[in-house]
Amino acid sequence: MFGVTILGNNSALPAYDRHPTAQIVTLHEQLFLIDCGEGTQMQMAKFKIRRSKINHIFISHLHGDHYFGLIGLITSMGLLGRENELHLYAPAVLKDIIDLQFKVADTKLPFALHFHPLLQEGLVVEGKRFSVECFSTQHRVECWGFIIREKKHPRKIDKEKVLQFNIPAVYYSHLKNGADYETKEGDIVKNEWVTLPNAEPRSYAFCADTIYDELLAEKVKNVTVIYHEATYLKDLDDRATARFHSTTEQAANIAIKANAEKLLIGHFSSKYEVLDQFLYEAKEVFPNSELAIEGVTFKI
Amino acid sequence: MFGVTILGNNSALPAYDRHPTAQIVTLHEQLFLIDCGEGTQMQMAKFKIRRSKINHIFISHLHGDHYFGLIGLITSMGLLGRENELHLYAPAVLKDIIDLQFKVADTKLPFALHFHPLLQEGLVVEGKRFSVECFSTQHRVECWGFIIREKKHPRKIDKEKVLQFNIPAVYYSHLKNGADYETKEGDIVKNEWVTLPNAEPRSYAFCADTIYDELLAEKVKNVTVIYHEATYLKDLDDRATARFHSTTEQAANIAIKANAEKLLIGHFSSKYEVLDQFLYEAKEVFPNSELAIEGVTFKI
Repeated sequence: MFGVTILGNNSALPAYDRHPTAQIVTLHEQLFLIDCGEGTQMQMAKFKIRRSKINHIFISHLHGDHYFGLIGLITSMGLLGRENELHLYAPAVLKDIIDLQFKVADTKLPFALHFHPLLQEGLVVEGKRFSVECFSTQHRVECWGFIIREKKHPRKIDKEKVLQFNIPAVYYSHLKNGADYETKEGDIVKNEWVTLPNAEPRSYAFCADTIYDELLAEKVKNVTVIYHEATYLKDLDDRATARFHSTTEQAANIAIKANAEKLLIGHFSSKYEVLDQFLYEAKEVFPNSELAIEGVTFKI
Repeated sequence: MFGVTILGNNSALPAYDRHPTAQIVTLHEQLFLIDCGEGTQMQMAKFKIRRSKINHIFISHLHGDHYFGLIGLITSMGLLGRENELHLYAPAVLKDIIDLQFKVADTKLPFALHFHPLLQEGLVVEGKRFSVECFSTQHRVECWGFIIREKKHPRKIDKEKVLQFNIPAVYYSHLKNGADYETKEGDIVKNEWVTLPNAEPRSYAFCADTIYDELLAEKVKNVTVIYHEATYLKDLDDRATARFHSTTEQAANIAIKANAEKLLIGHFSSKYEVLDQFLYEAKEVFPNSELAIEGVTFKI
Protein backbone atom coordinates (compact mmCIF):
# COMPACT_ATOMS: atom_id res chain seq x y z
CA MET A 1 0.00 0.00 0.00
CA PHE A 2 1.28 3.43 -1.02
CA GLY A 3 -1.28 6.21 -0.81
CA VAL A 4 -2.04 9.68 0.45
CA THR A 5 -5.06 10.57 2.58
CA ILE A 6 -6.14 14.20 2.59
CA LEU A 7 -7.02 15.63 6.01
CA GLY A 8 -7.15 19.30 5.02
CA ASN A 9 -7.33 21.05 1.67
CA ASN A 10 -8.12 24.69 2.41
CA SER A 11 -5.75 27.62 2.52
CA ALA A 12 -5.24 30.25 5.19
CA LEU A 13 -8.24 29.50 7.38
CA PRO A 14 -10.96 26.86 7.77
CA ALA A 15 -14.08 27.45 5.64
CA TYR A 16 -17.05 25.48 4.31
CA ASP A 17 -16.01 22.59 6.54
CA ARG A 18 -12.69 22.48 4.70
CA HIS A 19 -9.64 22.39 6.93
CA PRO A 20 -6.08 23.74 6.73
CA THR A 21 -3.39 21.59 5.16
CA ALA A 22 -2.55 18.11 6.45
CA GLN A 23 -1.93 14.85 4.60
CA ILE A 24 -1.15 11.30 5.68
CA VAL A 25 1.09 9.27 3.40
CA THR A 26 0.87 5.52 3.99
CA LEU A 27 3.76 3.45 2.69
CA HIS A 28 3.66 -0.23 3.66
CA GLU A 29 3.23 -0.06 7.45
CA GLN A 30 4.56 3.48 7.85
CA LEU A 31 2.41 6.58 8.24
CA PHE A 32 3.97 9.94 7.42
CA LEU A 33 2.24 13.17 8.35
CA ILE A 34 2.88 16.14 6.07
CA ASP A 35 1.84 19.48 7.54
CA CYS A 36 -0.52 19.79 10.45
CA GLY A 37 -2.99 22.68 10.38
CA GLU A 38 -5.31 23.41 13.28
CA GLY A 39 -7.74 20.56 13.93
CA THR A 40 -5.60 17.86 12.31
CA GLN A 41 -5.97 15.62 15.35
CA MET A 42 -9.76 15.92 15.08
CA GLN A 43 -9.56 15.07 11.36
CA MET A 44 -7.46 12.02 12.26
CA ALA A 45 -10.19 10.85 14.63
CA LYS A 46 -12.87 11.48 12.00
CA PHE A 47 -11.05 9.55 9.28
CA LYS A 48 -9.77 6.80 11.61
CA ILE A 49 -6.06 7.50 11.16
CA ARG A 50 -4.03 5.54 13.70
CA ARG A 51 -1.81 8.28 15.04
CA SER A 52 0.26 5.79 17.03
CA LYS A 53 1.54 4.58 13.63
CA ILE A 54 2.98 7.99 12.75
CA ASN A 55 6.71 8.10 13.38
CA HIS A 56 7.72 10.90 11.03
CA ILE A 57 6.17 14.36 10.72
CA PHE A 58 7.20 16.86 8.03
CA ILE A 59 6.31 20.55 8.27
CA SER A 60 6.74 22.55 5.07
CA HIS A 61 6.71 26.08 6.50
CA LEU A 62 5.58 28.16 9.43
CA HIS A 63 2.44 29.79 8.14
CA GLY A 64 -0.21 28.86 10.68
CA ASP A 65 -2.43 26.92 8.31
CA HIS A 66 0.41 24.39 7.95
CA TYR A 67 1.40 23.84 11.58
CA PHE A 68 -0.97 25.30 14.22
CA GLY A 69 -2.32 21.80 14.93
CA LEU A 70 1.09 20.29 15.59
CA ILE A 71 1.54 21.26 19.24
CA GLY A 72 -1.89 19.85 20.08
CA LEU A 73 -1.22 16.60 18.24
CA ILE A 74 2.12 16.04 19.96
CA THR A 75 0.64 16.93 23.35
CA SER A 76 -2.20 14.46 22.80
CA MET A 77 0.25 11.72 21.78
CA GLY A 78 1.95 12.28 25.12
CA LEU A 79 -1.31 12.24 27.09
CA LEU A 80 -2.25 8.98 25.37
CA GLY A 81 0.96 7.41 26.67
CA ARG A 82 2.91 7.08 23.43
CA GLU A 83 6.33 5.51 23.97
CA ASN A 84 7.75 5.24 20.44
CA GLU A 85 10.09 7.95 19.39
CA LEU A 86 8.79 10.59 17.02
CA HIS A 87 10.80 12.41 14.36
CA LEU A 88 9.92 15.92 13.34
CA TYR A 89 11.41 17.60 10.24
CA ALA A 90 10.73 21.32 9.95
CA PRO A 91 12.20 24.80 9.65
CA ALA A 92 14.65 25.25 12.52
CA VAL A 93 12.78 27.89 14.50
CA LEU A 94 9.81 25.61 15.07
CA LYS A 95 11.85 24.00 17.83
CA ASP A 96 11.90 27.28 19.78
CA ILE A 97 8.12 27.56 19.53
CA ILE A 98 7.52 24.00 20.71
CA ASP A 99 10.09 24.25 23.51
CA LEU A 100 8.49 27.45 24.80
CA GLN A 101 4.99 25.99 24.71
CA PHE A 102 6.07 22.87 26.56
CA LYS A 103 8.02 24.92 29.09
CA VAL A 104 5.12 27.15 30.11
CA ALA A 105 2.83 24.13 30.48
CA ASP A 106 5.50 22.14 32.33
CA THR A 107 4.94 19.35 29.78
CA LYS A 108 7.14 16.26 29.92
CA LEU A 109 6.55 13.93 27.00
CA PRO A 110 6.71 10.20 27.75
CA PHE A 111 8.45 9.60 24.41
CA ALA A 112 11.52 10.97 22.65
CA LEU A 113 10.77 13.78 20.22
CA HIS A 114 13.67 14.18 17.79
CA PHE A 115 13.73 17.50 16.01
CA HIS A 116 15.51 17.62 12.64
CA PRO A 117 15.84 21.13 11.23
CA LEU A 118 15.57 21.36 7.45
CA LEU A 119 18.78 23.04 6.33
CA GLN A 120 19.48 21.94 2.77
CA GLU A 121 17.88 20.09 -0.11
CA GLY A 122 18.40 16.34 -0.30
CA LEU A 123 17.83 13.19 1.70
CA VAL A 124 16.03 13.77 4.99
CA VAL A 125 15.40 10.26 6.25
CA GLU A 126 15.74 6.76 4.90
CA GLY A 127 14.21 3.48 6.05
CA LYS A 128 14.36 -0.07 4.77
CA ARG A 129 11.51 0.53 2.36
CA PHE A 130 11.33 4.29 1.91
CA SER A 131 13.29 7.48 1.61
CA VAL A 132 12.22 11.09 2.03
CA GLU A 133 13.92 14.03 0.36
CA CYS A 134 13.21 17.71 0.80
CA PHE A 135 13.50 20.55 -1.69
CA SER A 136 12.98 24.26 -1.28
CA THR A 137 10.02 26.04 -2.82
CA GLN A 138 9.52 29.73 -3.57
CA HIS A 139 7.08 31.15 -1.05
CA ARG A 140 6.87 34.23 1.17
CA VAL A 141 8.78 32.49 3.98
CA GLU A 142 11.24 29.58 4.11
CA CYS A 143 9.32 26.66 2.62
CA TRP A 144 10.08 23.01 1.82
CA GLY A 145 8.49 20.35 -0.31
CA PHE A 146 8.99 16.63 0.21
CA ILE A 147 9.36 13.56 -2.00
CA ILE A 148 8.53 10.22 -0.45
CA ARG A 149 9.91 7.32 -2.47
CA GLU A 150 9.56 3.59 -2.26
CA LYS A 151 12.89 1.82 -2.29
CA LYS A 152 13.70 -0.01 -5.51
CA HIS A 153 11.86 -3.32 -5.56
CA PRO A 154 13.95 -6.51 -5.72
CA ARG A 155 14.05 -8.25 -9.11
CA LYS A 156 11.79 -11.24 -9.69
CA ILE A 157 13.16 -14.77 -10.13
CA ASP A 158 12.51 -16.31 -13.56
CA LYS A 159 11.63 -19.81 -12.36
CA GLU A 160 12.29 -21.63 -15.61
CA LYS A 161 15.66 -20.01 -16.08
CA VAL A 162 17.03 -20.66 -12.59
CA LEU A 163 16.21 -24.35 -12.99
CA GLN A 164 17.81 -24.38 -16.41
CA PHE A 165 21.05 -22.96 -14.92
CA ASN A 166 20.81 -25.22 -11.84
CA ILE A 167 21.02 -22.31 -9.41
CA PRO A 168 20.35 -23.45 -5.83
CA ALA A 169 17.32 -21.85 -4.11
CA VAL A 170 19.49 -20.54 -1.28
CA TYR A 171 21.05 -18.12 -3.78
CA TYR A 172 17.73 -16.58 -4.93
CA SER A 173 17.84 -13.67 -2.46
CA HIS A 174 21.18 -12.58 -3.98
CA LEU A 175 19.69 -12.82 -7.46
CA LYS A 176 16.75 -10.65 -6.37
CA ASN A 177 19.20 -7.98 -5.29
CA GLY A 178 20.91 -8.03 -8.68
CA ALA A 179 23.92 -10.35 -8.15
CA ASP A 180 25.28 -12.58 -10.92
CA TYR A 181 25.84 -16.32 -10.22
CA GLU A 182 29.09 -18.20 -10.61
CA THR A 183 28.79 -21.92 -11.38
CA LYS A 184 31.13 -24.57 -9.92
CA GLU A 185 32.88 -24.55 -13.25
CA GLY A 186 33.60 -20.83 -12.88
CA ASP A 187 31.13 -19.71 -15.51
CA ILE A 188 29.20 -16.52 -14.89
CA VAL A 189 25.39 -16.53 -15.15
CA LYS A 190 24.39 -12.93 -15.67
CA ASN A 191 21.63 -11.65 -13.40
CA GLU A 192 19.42 -10.44 -16.21
CA TRP A 193 19.41 -13.98 -17.74
CA VAL A 194 17.60 -15.44 -14.72
CA THR A 195 15.60 -12.55 -13.23
CA LEU A 196 12.89 -10.21 -14.41
CA PRO A 197 12.54 -6.53 -13.56
CA ASN A 198 9.95 -5.67 -10.94
CA ALA A 199 7.61 -2.70 -10.98
CA GLU A 200 9.35 0.67 -10.91
CA PRO A 201 9.43 2.22 -7.45
CA ARG A 202 6.72 4.81 -7.00
CA SER A 203 7.02 8.24 -5.48
CA TYR A 204 4.93 11.13 -4.14
CA ALA A 205 5.92 14.78 -4.27
CA PHE A 206 4.27 17.26 -1.91
CA CYS A 207 5.10 20.67 -3.36
CA ALA A 208 3.93 22.74 -0.37
CA ASP A 209 3.02 26.38 -0.99
CA THR A 210 4.74 27.88 -4.00
CA ILE A 211 4.64 30.46 -6.69
CA TYR A 212 4.68 29.09 -10.27
CA ASP A 213 8.26 27.90 -10.62
CA GLU A 214 9.49 25.77 -13.53
CA LEU A 215 12.59 24.85 -11.56
CA LEU A 216 10.28 23.00 -9.19
CA ALA A 217 9.28 20.65 -12.01
CA GLU A 218 12.93 19.66 -12.35
CA LYS A 219 13.20 18.98 -8.63
CA VAL A 220 10.29 16.53 -8.69
CA LYS A 221 10.95 15.13 -12.18
CA ASN A 222 9.32 11.75 -12.88
CA VAL A 223 7.47 11.32 -9.59
CA THR A 224 4.39 9.12 -9.81
CA VAL A 225 1.98 11.52 -8.13
CA ILE A 226 2.52 15.22 -7.59
CA TYR A 227 0.55 17.34 -5.15
CA HIS A 228 0.73 20.97 -6.21
CA GLU A 229 -1.18 23.80 -4.60
CA ALA A 230 -3.83 25.60 -6.65
CA THR A 231 -4.99 28.37 -4.38
CA TYR A 232 -6.77 30.23 -7.18
CA LEU A 233 -8.52 29.63 -10.48
CA LYS A 234 -6.54 30.63 -13.56
CA ASP A 235 -8.10 34.08 -13.96
CA LEU A 236 -6.46 35.18 -10.71
CA ASP A 237 -2.88 34.50 -11.75
CA ASP A 238 -1.86 38.05 -10.81
CA ARG A 239 -3.13 37.58 -7.30
CA ALA A 240 -1.49 34.16 -7.10
CA THR A 241 1.85 35.60 -8.12
CA ALA A 242 1.58 38.54 -5.75
CA ARG A 243 0.99 36.15 -2.85
CA PHE A 244 3.53 33.53 -3.94
CA HIS A 245 0.76 31.05 -4.68
CA SER A 246 -0.33 29.22 -7.86
CA THR A 247 -3.38 28.70 -10.05
CA THR A 248 -4.99 25.52 -11.42
CA GLU A 249 -3.38 26.02 -14.80
CA GLN A 250 0.05 26.62 -13.31
CA ALA A 251 -0.21 23.50 -11.14
CA ALA A 252 -1.18 21.46 -14.19
CA ASN A 253 1.73 22.87 -16.20
CA ILE A 254 4.17 21.85 -13.48
CA ALA A 255 2.67 18.33 -13.52
CA ILE A 256 3.34 18.14 -17.28
CA LYS A 257 6.88 19.45 -17.00
CA ALA A 258 7.58 17.07 -14.12
CA ASN A 259 6.31 14.16 -16.23
CA ALA A 260 4.07 13.00 -13.36
CA GLU A 261 1.41 10.35 -13.84
CA LYS A 262 -1.16 12.07 -11.69
CA LEU A 263 -1.74 15.53 -10.23
CA LEU A 264 -3.52 16.33 -6.96
CA ILE A 265 -4.48 19.96 -6.38
CA GLY A 266 -5.46 21.54 -3.08
CA HIS A 267 -4.93 24.54 -0.76
CA PHE A 268 -8.09 26.14 -2.13
CA SER A 269 -8.77 29.75 -1.28
CA SER A 270 -11.71 30.46 1.02
CA LYS A 271 -13.00 32.72 -1.76
CA TYR A 272 -14.42 29.59 -3.37
CA GLU A 273 -17.26 27.61 -1.88
CA VAL A 274 -17.65 25.30 -4.89
CA LEU A 275 -14.60 23.58 -6.35
CA ASP A 276 -15.79 22.10 -9.69
CA GLN A 277 -14.05 24.74 -11.75
CA PHE A 278 -10.71 23.84 -10.16
CA LEU A 279 -10.98 20.32 -11.47
CA TYR A 280 -12.19 21.46 -14.88
CA GLU A 281 -9.33 23.91 -15.37
CA ALA A 282 -6.65 21.48 -14.20
CA LYS A 283 -7.95 18.66 -16.42
CA GLU A 284 -7.98 20.94 -19.44
CA VAL A 285 -4.21 21.13 -19.18
CA PHE A 286 -3.38 17.84 -17.44
CA PRO A 287 -6.18 15.28 -17.81
CA ASN A 288 -5.16 13.01 -14.93
CA SER A 289 -5.84 15.65 -12.28
CA GLU A 290 -7.89 15.26 -9.11
CA LEU A 291 -9.09 17.51 -6.31
CA ALA A 292 -7.49 16.73 -2.95
CA ILE A 293 -10.81 16.03 -1.24
CA GLU A 294 -10.72 15.57 2.53
CA GLY A 295 -11.13 11.99 3.71
CA VAL A 296 -10.19 10.52 0.33
CA THR A 297 -7.15 8.26 -0.04
CA PHE A 298 -5.42 8.45 -3.42
CA LYS A 299 -3.34 5.47 -4.52
CA ILE A 300 0.18 6.33 -5.59
CA MET B 1 -29.35 39.01 27.11
CA PHE B 2 -26.74 37.57 29.47
CA GLY B 3 -25.74 34.00 28.74
CA VAL B 4 -22.89 31.57 28.21
CA THR B 5 -22.52 29.34 25.15
CA ILE B 6 -20.32 26.29 25.54
CA LEU B 7 -17.92 25.61 22.65
CA GLY B 8 -15.77 22.96 24.35
CA ASN B 9 -16.26 20.86 27.47
CA ASN B 10 -13.57 18.20 27.40
CA SER B 11 -10.31 18.13 29.28
CA ALA B 12 -6.78 17.55 28.01
CA LEU B 13 -7.58 16.36 24.50
CA PRO B 14 -10.53 16.11 22.13
CA ALA B 15 -12.56 12.91 22.44
CA TYR B 16 -16.03 11.60 21.51
CA ASP B 17 -16.54 14.76 19.48
CA ARG B 18 -16.08 16.80 22.64
CA HIS B 19 -13.64 19.68 22.32
CA PRO B 20 -11.17 21.41 24.62
CA THR B 21 -12.34 24.35 26.74
CA ALA B 22 -13.87 27.46 25.18
CA GLN B 23 -16.92 29.50 26.18
CA ILE B 24 -18.63 32.56 24.77
CA VAL B 25 -20.28 34.90 27.26
CA THR B 26 -22.84 37.23 25.69
CA LEU B 27 -23.72 40.33 27.69
CA HIS B 28 -25.96 42.81 25.89
CA GLU B 29 -24.13 43.36 22.59
CA GLN B 30 -20.72 42.23 23.85
CA LEU B 31 -19.22 38.79 23.25
CA PHE B 32 -16.47 37.63 25.58
CA LEU B 33 -14.39 34.56 24.77
CA ILE B 34 -13.08 32.60 27.74
CA ASP B 35 -10.33 30.10 26.89
CA CYS B 36 -9.68 28.93 23.37
CA GLY B 37 -8.70 25.28 22.93
CA GLU B 38 -7.73 23.87 19.55
CA GLY B 39 -10.58 24.02 17.06
CA THR B 40 -12.43 26.88 18.77
CA GLN B 41 -12.71 28.79 15.49
CA MET B 42 -14.33 25.74 13.88
CA GLN B 43 -16.75 25.46 16.81
CA MET B 44 -17.60 29.14 16.35
CA ALA B 45 -18.48 28.47 12.71
CA LYS B 46 -20.54 25.43 13.70
CA PHE B 47 -22.53 27.28 16.35
CA LYS B 48 -22.81 30.54 14.37
CA ILE B 49 -20.86 32.71 16.80
CA ARG B 50 -20.10 36.08 15.20
CA ARG B 51 -16.42 36.35 15.93
CA SER B 52 -16.30 39.94 14.72
CA LYS B 53 -18.34 40.78 17.85
CA ILE B 54 -15.63 39.48 20.19
CA ASN B 55 -13.57 42.34 21.59
CA HIS B 56 -12.24 40.71 24.76
CA ILE B 57 -10.55 37.32 25.13
CA PHE B 58 -9.61 35.83 28.50
CA ILE B 59 -7.17 32.92 28.81
CA SER B 60 -7.12 31.16 32.18
CA HIS B 61 -3.82 29.29 31.90
CA LEU B 62 -1.31 27.92 29.45
CA HIS B 63 -2.17 24.25 29.35
CA GLY B 64 -2.75 23.54 25.68
CA ASP B 65 -6.39 22.51 26.01
CA HIS B 66 -7.16 26.08 27.08
CA TYR B 67 -5.27 28.10 24.46
CA PHE B 68 -3.92 26.12 21.47
CA GLY B 69 -6.74 27.49 19.29
CA LEU B 70 -5.99 31.13 20.08
CA ILE B 71 -3.23 31.80 17.56
CA GLY B 72 -5.37 30.36 14.77
CA LEU B 73 -8.39 32.41 15.79
CA ILE B 74 -6.43 35.66 15.93
CA THR B 75 -4.72 34.89 12.61
CA SER B 76 -8.09 34.21 10.98
CA MET B 77 -9.53 37.45 12.37
CA GLY B 78 -6.65 39.22 10.63
CA LEU B 79 -7.15 37.34 7.35
CA LEU B 80 -10.84 38.26 7.44
CA GLY B 81 -9.89 41.92 7.58
CA ARG B 82 -10.90 42.75 11.16
CA GLU B 83 -10.26 46.38 12.03
CA ASN B 84 -11.62 46.70 15.57
CA GLU B 85 -9.10 46.46 18.34
CA LEU B 86 -8.96 43.23 20.30
CA HIS B 87 -8.06 42.89 23.99
CA LEU B 88 -6.39 39.78 25.27
CA TYR B 89 -6.06 39.04 29.01
CA ALA B 90 -3.77 36.13 29.86
CA PRO B 91 -0.69 34.96 31.77
CA ALA B 92 2.18 37.23 30.76
CA VAL B 93 4.29 34.68 28.88
CA LEU B 94 1.58 34.08 26.30
CA LYS B 95 2.71 37.31 24.67
CA ASP B 96 6.13 35.78 23.95
CA ILE B 97 4.53 32.77 22.30
CA ILE B 98 2.24 34.85 20.10
CA ASP B 99 4.99 37.31 19.17
CA LEU B 100 7.28 34.45 18.14
CA GLN B 101 4.59 32.77 16.04
CA PHE B 102 3.73 36.01 14.27
CA LYS B 103 7.39 36.81 13.71
CA VAL B 104 8.25 33.54 11.97
CA ALA B 105 5.19 33.86 9.73
CA ASP B 106 5.85 37.54 9.08
CA THR B 107 2.25 38.20 10.15
CA LYS B 108 1.04 41.79 10.36
CA LEU B 109 -2.43 42.06 11.84
CA PRO B 110 -4.71 44.70 10.31
CA PHE B 111 -6.09 45.51 13.80
CA ALA B 112 -4.59 46.45 17.15
CA LEU B 113 -4.10 43.51 19.50
CA HIS B 114 -3.74 44.76 23.07
CA PHE B 115 -2.16 42.27 25.41
CA HIS B 116 -2.98 42.65 29.12
CA PRO B 117 -0.97 40.33 31.36
CA LEU B 118 -2.85 39.02 34.39
CA LEU B 119 -0.75 40.05 37.37
CA GLN B 120 -3.05 40.34 40.38
CA GLU B 121 -6.58 39.57 41.45
CA GLY B 122 -9.21 42.26 40.91
CA LEU B 123 -10.75 44.33 38.15
CA VAL B 124 -9.46 43.49 34.69
CA VAL B 125 -11.68 45.54 32.42
CA GLU B 126 -14.78 47.64 32.78
CA GLY B 127 -17.30 48.86 30.23
CA LYS B 128 -20.50 50.86 30.44
CA ARG B 129 -22.57 47.79 31.11
CA PHE B 130 -20.11 45.17 32.36
CA SER B 131 -17.04 44.54 34.45
CA VAL B 132 -14.65 41.60 34.49
CA GLU B 133 -12.57 40.58 37.50
CA CYS B 134 -9.95 37.88 37.72
CA PHE B 135 -9.01 35.67 40.67
CA SER B 136 -6.28 33.07 41.01
CA THR B 137 -7.10 29.37 41.24
CA GLN B 138 -5.00 26.51 42.58
CA HIS B 139 -3.77 24.45 39.63
CA ARG B 140 -0.46 22.97 38.49
CA VAL B 141 0.54 26.16 36.70
CA GLU B 142 -0.43 29.83 37.06
CA CYS B 143 -4.19 29.86 36.58
CA TRP B 144 -6.94 32.50 36.66
CA GLY B 145 -10.70 32.45 36.94
CA PHE B 146 -12.94 35.29 35.78
CA ILE B 147 -16.15 36.92 37.00
CA ILE B 148 -18.20 38.81 34.42
CA ARG B 149 -20.73 41.12 36.03
CA GLU B 150 -23.52 43.26 34.72
CA LYS B 151 -23.32 46.81 35.95
CA LYS B 152 -25.94 47.76 38.51
CA HIS B 153 -29.23 48.49 36.74
CA PRO B 154 -30.69 52.02 37.06
CA ARG B 155 -33.66 52.37 39.45
CA LYS B 156 -37.15 52.42 37.97
CA ILE B 157 -39.36 55.53 38.02
CA ASP B 158 -42.51 55.18 40.12
CA LYS B 159 -44.86 57.00 37.74
CA GLU B 160 -47.57 57.83 40.29
CA LYS B 161 -45.09 59.24 42.78
CA VAL B 162 -43.19 61.47 40.36
CA LEU B 163 -46.48 63.07 39.27
CA GLN B 164 -47.51 63.49 42.89
CA PHE B 165 -44.25 65.37 43.65
CA ASN B 166 -44.45 67.33 40.35
CA ILE B 167 -40.96 66.26 39.24
CA PRO B 168 -40.28 67.33 35.63
CA ALA B 169 -39.59 64.48 33.18
CA VAL B 170 -36.24 65.98 32.25
CA TYR B 171 -35.01 65.02 35.74
CA TYR B 172 -35.97 61.31 35.48
CA SER B 173 -32.52 60.16 34.29
CA HIS B 174 -31.00 61.62 37.47
CA LEU B 175 -33.61 59.82 39.56
CA LYS B 176 -32.78 56.53 37.81
CA ASN B 177 -29.18 56.97 38.86
CA GLY B 178 -30.16 57.46 42.50
CA ALA B 179 -30.26 61.27 42.88
CA ASP B 180 -32.68 63.02 45.23
CA TYR B 181 -34.83 65.93 43.91
CA GLU B 182 -34.95 69.42 45.32
CA THR B 183 -38.20 71.35 44.80
CA LYS B 184 -38.37 75.08 44.00
CA GLU B 185 -39.27 75.57 47.64
CA GLY B 186 -36.01 73.86 48.65
CA ASP B 187 -37.66 70.71 49.99
CA ILE B 188 -35.84 67.41 49.39
CA VAL B 189 -37.72 64.53 47.72
CA LYS B 190 -35.76 61.41 48.65
CA ASN B 191 -34.91 59.15 45.75
CA GLU B 192 -36.46 56.05 47.35
CA TRP B 193 -39.84 57.86 47.65
CA VAL B 194 -40.18 58.15 43.85
CA THR B 195 -38.20 55.22 42.41
CA LEU B 196 -38.29 51.44 42.70
CA PRO B 197 -35.33 49.10 42.84
CA ASN B 198 -34.54 47.26 39.59
CA ALA B 199 -33.43 43.61 39.27
CA GLU B 200 -30.15 42.79 40.97
CA PRO B 201 -27.21 42.70 38.55
CA ARG B 202 -26.31 39.19 37.52
CA SER B 203 -22.88 37.64 37.30
CA TYR B 204 -21.02 34.63 35.89
CA ALA B 205 -17.96 33.04 37.44
CA PHE B 206 -15.68 30.88 35.31
CA CYS B 207 -13.55 28.97 37.81
CA ALA B 208 -11.03 27.58 35.29
CA ASP B 209 -9.07 24.47 36.29
CA THR B 210 -8.72 24.03 40.02
CA ILE B 211 -8.22 21.65 42.85
CA TYR B 212 -11.04 21.62 45.45
CA ASP B 213 -10.49 24.92 47.25
CA GLU B 214 -12.98 26.41 49.71
CA LEU B 215 -11.26 29.77 49.43
CA LEU B 216 -12.45 29.83 45.82
CA ALA B 217 -16.07 29.85 47.02
CA GLU B 218 -15.34 33.09 48.90
CA LYS B 219 -13.82 34.64 45.79
CA VAL B 220 -16.96 34.03 43.73
CA LYS B 221 -19.48 34.51 46.57
CA ASN B 222 -23.03 35.25 45.45
CA VAL B 223 -22.50 34.99 41.69
CA THR B 224 -25.61 34.05 39.75
CA VAL B 225 -24.09 31.19 37.77
CA ILE B 226 -20.86 29.40 38.56
CA TYR B 227 -18.93 27.25 36.10
CA HIS B 228 -16.72 24.83 38.01
CA GLU B 229 -14.68 22.06 36.45
CA ALA B 230 -15.59 18.45 37.27
CA THR B 231 -12.91 16.46 35.52
CA TYR B 232 -13.77 13.25 37.42
CA LEU B 233 -16.66 11.50 39.10
CA LYS B 234 -16.60 11.53 42.88
CA ASP B 235 -14.97 8.11 43.34
CA LEU B 236 -11.77 9.48 41.76
CA ASP B 237 -11.21 12.27 44.26
CA ASP B 238 -7.66 11.05 44.93
CA ARG B 239 -6.79 11.30 41.28
CA ALA B 240 -8.48 14.71 41.04
CA THR B 241 -6.44 16.01 43.96
CA ALA B 242 -3.17 14.58 42.63
CA ARG B 243 -3.72 16.37 39.32
CA PHE B 244 -5.08 19.61 40.81
CA HIS B 245 -8.52 18.92 39.39
CA SER B 246 -11.97 18.46 40.98
CA THR B 247 -14.84 15.98 41.08
CA THR B 248 -18.58 16.43 40.58
CA GLU B 249 -19.21 16.44 44.30
CA GLN B 250 -16.48 18.96 44.96
CA ALA B 251 -17.79 21.30 42.24
CA ALA B 252 -21.27 21.08 43.74
CA ASN B 253 -19.96 21.83 47.22
CA ILE B 254 -18.23 24.97 45.95
CA ALA B 255 -21.51 26.06 44.33
CA ILE B 256 -23.26 25.71 47.71
CA LYS B 257 -20.56 27.57 49.61
CA ALA B 258 -20.55 30.32 46.96
CA ASN B 259 -24.33 30.67 47.32
CA ALA B 260 -24.72 30.47 43.53
CA GLU B 261 -28.11 30.05 41.89
CA LYS B 262 -26.89 27.63 39.25
CA LEU B 263 -23.88 25.40 38.65
CA LEU B 264 -22.43 24.41 35.28
CA ILE B 265 -19.91 21.58 35.26
CA GLY B 266 -17.49 20.72 32.47
CA HIS B 267 -13.87 19.82 31.58
CA PHE B 268 -14.79 16.15 31.53
CA SER B 269 -12.02 13.59 31.42
CA SER B 270 -11.64 11.57 28.23
CA LYS B 271 -11.97 8.48 30.45
CA TYR B 272 -15.72 8.99 30.24
CA GLU B 273 -17.70 8.51 27.06
CA VAL B 274 -21.11 8.91 28.75
CA LEU B 275 -21.76 11.87 31.04
CA ASP B 276 -25.07 11.05 32.80
CA GLN B 277 -23.39 10.16 36.06
CA PHE B 278 -21.75 13.58 36.20
CA LEU B 279 -25.14 15.27 36.25
CA TYR B 280 -26.56 12.79 38.74
CA GLU B 281 -23.72 13.23 41.21
CA ALA B 282 -23.71 17.02 40.98
CA LYS B 283 -27.49 17.27 41.42
CA GLU B 284 -27.37 15.03 44.49
CA VAL B 285 -25.40 17.78 46.24
CA PHE B 286 -26.57 20.91 44.37
CA PRO B 287 -29.89 20.35 42.57
CA ASN B 288 -29.65 23.27 40.14
CA SER B 289 -26.67 21.79 38.30
CA GLU B 290 -26.26 21.32 34.57
CA LEU B 291 -23.73 19.74 32.24
CA ALA B 292 -21.87 22.27 30.08
CA ILE B 293 -23.01 20.70 26.80
CA GLU B 294 -21.39 22.03 23.61
CA GLY B 295 -23.59 24.27 21.52
CA VAL B 296 -25.97 25.01 24.39
CA THR B 297 -26.48 28.58 25.65
CA PHE B 298 -27.27 28.87 29.35
CA LYS B 299 -29.07 31.99 30.55
CA ILE B 300 -27.41 33.77 33.43
